[in-house]
Amino acid sequence: MRRPRRVKPLATIISAGLSKFGRREGVYARELFAEAALEAFHRVEKLDPGKDIKAAFIGQMSEAYEHQAHDAPIAASWAGLLPAPATRIENACASSGSALRCGIMAIKSGLYDIVLVGGVEKMTNQPTPEVTGILATASDYPFEQWNGMTFPGLFALMATVHMHDYGTTEEQMAAVAVKNHKNGALNPKAHMQKEVSLDEVMKSRMVAWPLKLYDCSLITDGASCLILTSPKLAKKLSDNYVHIIGSGQSQDTFCLHERDSLTTINAAKQAAQEAYKMADVKAKDIDVAEVHDCFTIAEIIACEDLGFCRPGQGGKFVESGASNIGGAIPINTSGGLKSKGHPVGATGTAQVHELFLQLTGQADRRQVADAEIALAHNLGGSGATGVVHILRGA
Amino acid sequence: MRRPRRVKPLATIISAGLSKFGRREGVYARELFAEAALEAFHRVEKLDPGKDIKAAFIGQMSEAYEHQAHDAPIAASWAGLLPAPATRIENACASSGSALRCGIMAIKSGLYDIVLVGGVEKMTNQPTPEVTGILATASDYPFEQWNGMTFPGLFALMATVHMHDYGTTEEQMAAVAVKNHKNGALNPKAHMQKEVSLDEVMKSRMVAWPLKLYDCSLITDGASCLILTSPKLAKKLSDNYVHIIGSGQSQDTFCLHERDSLTTINAAKQAAQEAYKMADVKAKDIDVAEVHDCFTIAEIIACEDLGFCRPGQGGKFVESGASNIGGAIPINTSGGLKSKGHPVGATGTAQVHELFLQLTGQADRRQVADAEIALAHNLGGSGATGVVHILRGA
Repeated sequence: MRRPRRVKPLATIISAGLSKFGRREGVYARELFAEAALEAFHRVEKLDPGKDIKAAFIGQMSEAYEHQAHDAPIAASWAGLLPAPATRIENACASSGSALRCGIMAIKSGLYDIVLVGGVEKMTNQPTPEVTGILATASDYPFEQWNGMTFPGLFALMATVHMHDYGTTEEQMAAVAVKNHKNGALNPKAHMQKEVSLDEVMKSRMVAWPLKLYDCSLITDGASCLILTSPKLAKKLSDNYVHIIGSGQSQDTFCLHERDSLTTINAAKQAAQEAYKMADVKAKDIDVAEVHDCFTIAEIIACEDLGFCRPGQGGKFVESGASNIGGAIPINTSGGLKSKGHPVGATGTAQVHELFLQLTGQADRRQVADAEIALAHNLGGSGATGVVHILRGA
Repeated sequence: MRRPRRVKPLATIISAGLSKFGRREGVYARELFAEAALEAFHRVEKLDPGKDIKAAFIGQMSEAYEHQAHDAPIAASWAGLLPAPATRIENACASSGSALRCGIMAIKSGLYDIVLVGGVEKMTNQPTPEVTGILATASDYPFEQWNGMTFPGLFALMATVHMHDYGTTEEQMAAVAVKNHKNGALNPKAHMQKEVSLDEVMKSRMVAWPLKLYDCSLITDGASCLILTSPKLAKKLSDNYVHIIGSGQSQDTFCLHERDSLTTINAAKQAAQEAYKMADVKAKDIDVAEVHDCFTIAEIIACEDLGFCRPGQGGKFVESGASNIGGAIPINTSGGLKSKGHPVGATGTAQVHELFLQLTGQADRRQVADAEIALAHNLGGSGATGVVHILRGA
């Protein structure tokens, strides 16, 4: 078997932090972010965060939840980082995937030697219909929102075409939910730590045909962060670090009606190709992955776009158990957006938080054996933005 | 006289574009951005934008104006950049100053060779009280907004203390407005191309004592952008380029009540120190500057923070004519936020657009003679974020 060449890392992750995900009543986004940051700080004793961390890039989707724009400086200062500059990065659900990419550029440019990247979203203080409306701002206003489209509807369209073109079944989509809830039940930080049966998923109430309640990710409060530095400095600061060896970001047409196909997400496919090439690895080299399962159909499409299975075979892939913990490529060991939860701005770096745990052997009951290469796949909106990162254990 | 050392540029600006600023009825932010991008594209004939531009970083303050988040991909694709990834950067009024800094890191990291940075805001489609509310989201929700503070109020507090501590007068603040309107009258892209007299400013209606209507910047629709590349590639693509030799970003406490002083903005002062050091220039080396005159008092404080005059002397400085076109350091030759307008997300790169024109001798009737070194000063909110860039003509 071909061993991937050990490419020079872009940057190195020396720590990761995650707030408890869930309905976090009575706390502001800034407090959630500080909670995640504190966990990250505690992992690296040799770091003096307020002194050593030179900048922060923080993903957050919407200022509507807390009537608060300019929130990155607030979150960073509550984490004790003053006067390090903080910048909010917003690419809808790919906000912190994009923030991570900015952090990589910050390190690789030499402008900073240690930076914090992360994301946060406080969502449950708004009533659900309001949240649906806020989330819909990540779709096109004149072409989609005005016509009544919301995200369940957009992904239901993709699901419908996938079923039509490839014979994908509702049961196969439900299998994604069953797997991810099983994983999430092993994650003490997950929002919904409970298993669900295929029958429960199939019988849950319809949201937008064929997507039912359990096909949809959760409205969750949460925050995540990573501490990045150069590979050289990482060795001095920590014994537990993970290299970023590939990073890709691409873009597709914003609206679904402009796309040639609804069964693939070009932005993610192109981002993956960029990241694979940079990392000099192929899909079969990936040992564990976190993919953007905002809806169950999205995980099925992701597995195809990333090359884990052939186009159209994503339903059979999950049904086969290949993506279970213990399978060929365990996917969403954290529980994914489906069960861990989807605090939009926090999701991209929360995925990488899980992979950091996996690659440093800290994933406890959901540990994947001998994981060395990991991949994170993060979408913005209905896939206008795709961000893929590839990590290697040190 | 000491000549500044010619430091190696961080990145090079090969083009700049600006939409017409003003009340732009019937167009979306995306269309304004495309207008600015097209101007930038037309300046560099050797560039094939859709092919050569590899990524975009676009500042935008709020998704509330158009119920549109995730707007960077939309703006970039309307400018013809697909599939180059676009990322929204949000630091309130310093959004595109921060976007420029991300673009610099993108180039300097070697991840991209040519990127577009810019900003956009479409504001006039909302009624003015609504706009005031949206802008207020850039101040702290629990500590400031809830107590009824809006931005005129926050800057009025700074003005009051400046008057108390240094004897700064309402007439001196008004002098900023008179100068900037005089400059804006020479700028065909400015929102308000009309001169105002000291008397008119002084007699305009009170907004938040001591700030009157003409002490406040404008609610404006507009977009701006810059094309960045490496110094080496710049030479191949254009004869008219400007080097970025210094870049600083810093942060202060978010709320005014946490600050030791209201007569200085630490974030801007620290950002300036960082940029001056990087560029190896001093305040006296600056030939022309655009500073963040969201309110007239803000320009007075900026002149002090940047070292153009001593602390407390900003009022006398503007009154002396030193910052007029033809003075020692012409400031806000574009008309500034005061007269050119302040489409929040667009402001940071709009300032640099003006300096690009000045340093390449294209500023027409407002041209500063022999300008070689220029400075842009961009604030976020009430100064939690400060971003300073220093440019050198090639």
